[in-house]
Amino acid sequence: MTDLKPKIAVSIGDLNGIGIEIALRCHEKISKICQPIYCINNKMLKLASYELKIAVPENFKLFETKGNFDLEAGTVSKKAGKYSYDSFIDAINLANKKEVDAICTLPINKESWSKANIKYKGHTEVLRDYFDKNAIMMLGCKKMFVGLFTEHIPLKKVAKKINEKDLTTFLIDFYKNTKSNNIGVLGLNPHASDNGVLGNEEEQIIKAIKKANKYLEKDIFKGPLVPDTAFSPLSRKNFKYFVAMYHDQGLAPLKALYFDQSINVSLNLPIIRTSVDHGTAFNIAYKHEKINTKSYVNAIKEAIILIQNKK
Amino acid sequence: MTDLKPKIAVSIGDLNGIGIEIALRCHEKISKICQPIYCINNKMLKLASYELKIAVPENFKLFETKGNFDLEAGTVSKKAGKYSYDSFIDAINLANKKEVDAICTLPINKESWSKANIKYKGHTEVLRDYFDKNAIMMLGCKKMFVGLFTEHIPLKKVAKKINEKDLTTFLIDFYKNTKSNNIGVLGLNPHASDNGVLGNEEEQIIKAIKKANKYLEKDIFKGPLVPDTAFSPLSRKNFKYFVAMYHDQGLAPLKALYFDQSINVSLNLPIIRTSVDHGTAFNIAYKHEKINTKSYVNAIKEAIILIQNKK
Repeated sequence: MTDLKPKIAVSIGDLNGIGIEIALRCHEKISKICQPIYCINNKMLKLASYELKIAVPENFKLFETKGNFDLEAGTVSKKAGKYSYDSFIDAINLANKKEVDAICTLPINKESWSKANIKYKGHTEVLRDYFDKNAIMMLGCKKMFVGLFTEHIPLKKVAKKINEKDLTTFLIDFYKNTKSNNIGVLGLNPHASDNGVLGNEEEQIIKAIKKANKYLEKDIFKGPLVPDTAFSPLSRKNFKYFVAMYHDQGLAPLKALYFDQSINVSLNLPIIRTSVDHGTAFNIAYKHEKINTKSYVNAIKEAIILIQNKK
Repeated sequence: MTDLKPKIAVSIGDLNGIGIEIALRCHEKISKICQPIYCINNKMLKLASYELKIAVPENFKLFETKGNFDLEAGTVSKKAGKYSYDSFIDAINLANKKEVDAICTLPINKESWSKANIKYKGHTEVLRDYFDKNAIMMLGCKKMFVGLFTEHIPLKKVAKKINEKDLTTFLIDFYKNTKSNNIGVLGLNPHASDNGVLGNEEEQIIKAIKKANKYLEKDIFKGPLVPDTAFSPLSRKNFKYFVAMYHDQGLAPLKALYFDQSINVSLNLPIIRTSVDHGTAFNIAYKHEKINTKSYVNAIKEAIILIQNKK
């Protein structure tokens, strides 16, 4: 009988970190809802399995990412950096060739990438470059998701980035990717400017909301929401999807509420990619400590939802 | 027998809103821990009590704020605006003359103040003017408090306000008022700038932290904390008091977590003032609806803590 469950390529992350342990521990659980294909070769897998004292589960399908080096638990390393990058590229290629329906990425270490002379700072940058597309960064969990209109820029540069044109495009793309009919858009200033008393960027936000709603012929976007009450319990009853104007506006409330279970999703790309929202946790890698696997399992689940949405 | 419980003057807020109902409903409870003195005259109190169908509790001590007008539940009104202002000024005077140990303010309506030609936008502005002192705005609840280094200014103006000198003064004042030995100070930029890659204001923050700690001869202040993880569950185990660089950085996570129970505290003044962290709720005033009184009770409790700290 053919397995109809969606195929997901899992890039294995930095092998000196906790990613491989998460993959081994969660295989049985996630195999019930998808067919994972792990981008790691058999030799490296055996090494990690031996060090972790966790047997390789049955039906642990591999795409054999090339490479061969010694593991050094919890250590920044050029070889581990290169291998995690290669595993990621293999996963992207599989998705690009439609051999899998989505990819899910385990954490890499930025310093290890830098040591391996990889010019990117993280997964999202690689994806933008690979596909030459404006990926949208969305973080969250089943209860709420936040799309970031601006990301890794100094706070002082945020206000200048708020303009009707770019925001309208962003909103329409965000809708097309999430298919949510009710999206809360945050203002930029305290009290969403109190009608212009505290800044004027809300004018651009209001125009963008109107334009995007008009284009979509439906009142999808509501706002500008007052930023400090947008994530209050009552407001979260009204919205599952939010658009934040800047990094910490969306992520500080998200992480205050749902730190453990949050995931990272790259929208607006030709492929589906989800990721854990945590790092390599070098301090607890290969130490048989309790590892939180919620973020990974949620990332796999969200990939499946996005695959279904796309159909 | 003399009552040794601390005396707290309660300014009654906008009589067309929910403040008076909260005061009547909570009197028995708060009387166990303090001696409240309500700034409202007997005639206005009787009117409200009659409309609310709530009997005036025993030992409901008044400071008779002058005034006489008809109540109009849920309505912006010049007379109600003026009365709420007069009640507030009476409360301040009582505290300034040391006839009470603290004041606790019930919500006023900004539009009603404006109709009554009161030039201030809110309580804190009046206090700054009355005492000619730089009041510090702190919001929170038993579980966490956030002091705001900047408040009601456009987001684009925040970065320029971050300077070593002003922040050092702020931090020392914040310590003197909270007496906390462990205060988390947030960075300004995403990832607290990742060592200067995303903005440079963290340099000023680091210098201010060092200077304040040196002045206080103790490592009181820690940071700069990464803003989006500062309020994660783990970080909140480390800190009860935080200093946020701007309004929404502190208040969005606070309100995401503790919307109902939060209060507002004015620090750095000759008198102690706490307040509910909600408005007049005109939509439910005098309607016999369920009213959340947590914020008021917490505001009274915090006033008592601050009175004890001062001794």
